[in-house]
Amino acid sequence: MSASKVPTTVCLSAADVVRLVQRVGLSECIAGVAARIERDFLRWQEFDKSARVACHSDVGVIELMPIADARDFAFKYVNGHPKNTQNGLPTVMAFGVLADVDTGAPRLLSELTLTTAIRTAAMSAVAARALARPDCCTMALIGNGAQSEFQAIAFRDLVGIRTLRVYDVDPAATRKLVRNLANKGLKIIVCESATEAARGADIITTVTADKTNATIVLADMIEPGMHINAVGGDCPGKTELHADVLNAGKVFVEYEPQTRIEGDIQQMGAEFFVTEIWKVLAGQAPGRTAATQITVFDSVGFALEDYCALTFLRDTAAELGIGGVVELIPATENPKNLFGVLQLEKDNTRHEAALV
Amino acid sequence: MSASKVPTTVCLSAADVVRLVQRVGLSECIAGVAARIERDFLRWQEFDKSARVACHSDVGVIELMPIADARDFAFKYVNGHPKNTQNGLPTVMAFGVLADVDTGAPRLLSELTLTTAIRTAAMSAVAARALARPDCCTMALIGNGAQSEFQAIAFRDLVGIRTLRVYDVDPAATRKLVRNLANKGLKIIVCESATEAARGADIITTVTADKTNATIVLADMIEPGMHINAVGGDCPGKTELHADVLNAGKVFVEYEPQTRIEGDIQQMGAEFFVTEIWKVLAGQAPGRTAATQITVFDSVGFALEDYCALTFLRDTAAELGIGGVVELIPATENPKNLFGVLQLEKDNTRHEAALV
Repeated sequence: MSASKVPTTVCLSAADVVRLVQRVGLSECIAGVAARIERDFLRWQEFDKSARVACHSDVGVIELMPIADARDFAFKYVNGHPKNTQNGLPTVMAFGVLADVDTGAPRLLSELTLTTAIRTAAMSAVAARALARPDCCTMALIGNGAQSEFQAIAFRDLVGIRTLRVYDVDPAATRKLVRNLANKGLKIIVCESATEAARGADIITTVTADKTNATIVLADMIEPGMHINAVGGDCPGKTELHADVLNAGKVFVEYEPQTRIEGDIQQMGAEFFVTEIWKVLAGQAPGRTAATQITVFDSVGFALEDYCALTFLRDTAAELGIGGVVELIPATENPKNLFGVLQLEKDNTRHEAALV
Repeated sequence: MSASKVPTTVCLSAADVVRLVQRVGLSECIAGVAARIERDFLRWQEFDKSARVACHSDVGVIELMPIADARDFAFKYVNGHPKNTQNGLPTVMAFGVLADVDTGAPRLLSELTLTTAIRTAAMSAVAARALARPDCCTMALIGNGAQSEFQAIAFRDLVGIRTLRVYDVDPAATRKLVRNLANKGLKIIVCESATEAARGADIITTVTADKTNATIVLADMIEPGMHINAVGGDCPGKTELHADVLNAGKVFVEYEPQTRIEGDIQQMGAEFFVTEIWKVLAGQAPGRTAATQITVFDSVGFALEDYCALTFLRDTAAELGIGGVVELIPATENPKNLFGVLQLEKDNTRHEAALV
């Protein structure tokens, strides 16, 4: 009997994805993932969707985020541990897998820590393009940690933001952001408070990490016509917007069943009206209907965005010849003879020993 | 600022785990995992448990199985595609991860295809030791595919089985089993039907793969005092036991909420009485109460068994110095400066170029 076809699993390490982003360009990667989000969100009904499975502890959360269409099964492993940075570890670490629905064979294992920052920024910009006023040029960026520069670049490229008003409780984080975004076509105004940052902004983006029911954005900070891109409030007990802000605005979400549990709208009753963003992208529901309206994108991160990011990585890595192989599945001569792998390799070992 | 602590993720490839099992011995690995199952099932209340998340297609299923205690988060990716063997691919392929609950850092990525066969056999034997008559020596083994020899070895070592009565719809699978189990202290009787295999057996083990509501075991095949170890009926629409068999026996399960969906008891109403096996292992519920009673272990595979297998692999691989490293998490000088990894590496590249 001929040797079985062992499925090959491509492995994109963190270093591989850094190389990929450097060769393609960060702007081009964000735009590439955004284009896939805009395309694949129109196929919303084709996906087998579920709210992510979360495992909570006192200090953080670990989540699995599966999704599939008829061809690809995708999942992401991701954690959120706000205190990690005190110990030199990232708050968010992630990796993910693409597998064939037809056979169940895993085809790609990839880092998704860097990629999550890219896809989150791409999703935020896609939503803002659909919801914010077309003439937006100033964004408050509250929370200047690991995700912040990616949001800045995405909004510069895809939304037309030219001025950032930045604030973080940690001034070192803000200094880092200012250094990283020097000479990138963005005017950066460092602010002393979230309230100061919001003043005169067209868009408020919140990317804070604390796992508390924080009220980063209060009702007296918002002005008519603003768009609020609330990224950091993404699990039970972790919010950023005061309920009055949600009541003042029209709220858009990714996947309603998940956002009811995890989003800023966890503060509101089940009857609180929200619109899934795919409906706006597909022209099935209105987005912003007046220049003075307040729009809120209550983003928590949905598996479909990771599907878009993983398929982007798979296709781009294949084009560029980036990546290695991880041997996850044992090679058998006959797939019904799994037991045989123990004998087979032992024989090989003996054979090798005999050769020595 | 000093370099951040990038968490190290140990990678156990399929070849690594084959080597590990060869060095430790298959019997010893099954016994080692069985010992962990017997220990960790007593800590049942300490685990954050959920029914696995399944993604079904016409030809198979892909599942994610998460679980955690206060220290370790574990999950397994596993598929079930019965027609894969026609194309030279295994029916079941699996891999899994252990991560630190305190930080979310992934610590171990391992193959779990071979390991799933080991842990399933270990779980079956642990359950049989608690439920079958102590004087059992003959087992019918119906389904002679990838899992079958592991069941045979586990029941030989841990339950005292000395005679196997084997049957498969595919005679080649049975011939393979007979070859693999030659000179292993087991008398093997090849049977022409499931009914013939069951005749005179103390235990009936079913490990068939078809995703159908098959009735492999009918009421007229069972005899007083039998224990039925039903392994292959493990997702909606995939059963092995006739309802009359379930009605005739006392049924034990792993995790009731999951088995109600996936097990043979999916045929029964929500009021059908079952006992979780951990209660029997912990002495909190009776197992078999009479020598003539029929006991049924309606096994579907639960995440806690994979936790036991993954922690066994982690500890054993560390002792033996087996395994490599997969670099899943980007190294940053400052964990809040994820953006910096793009610049840092580019500078390194330039530096290297300058050196050339």
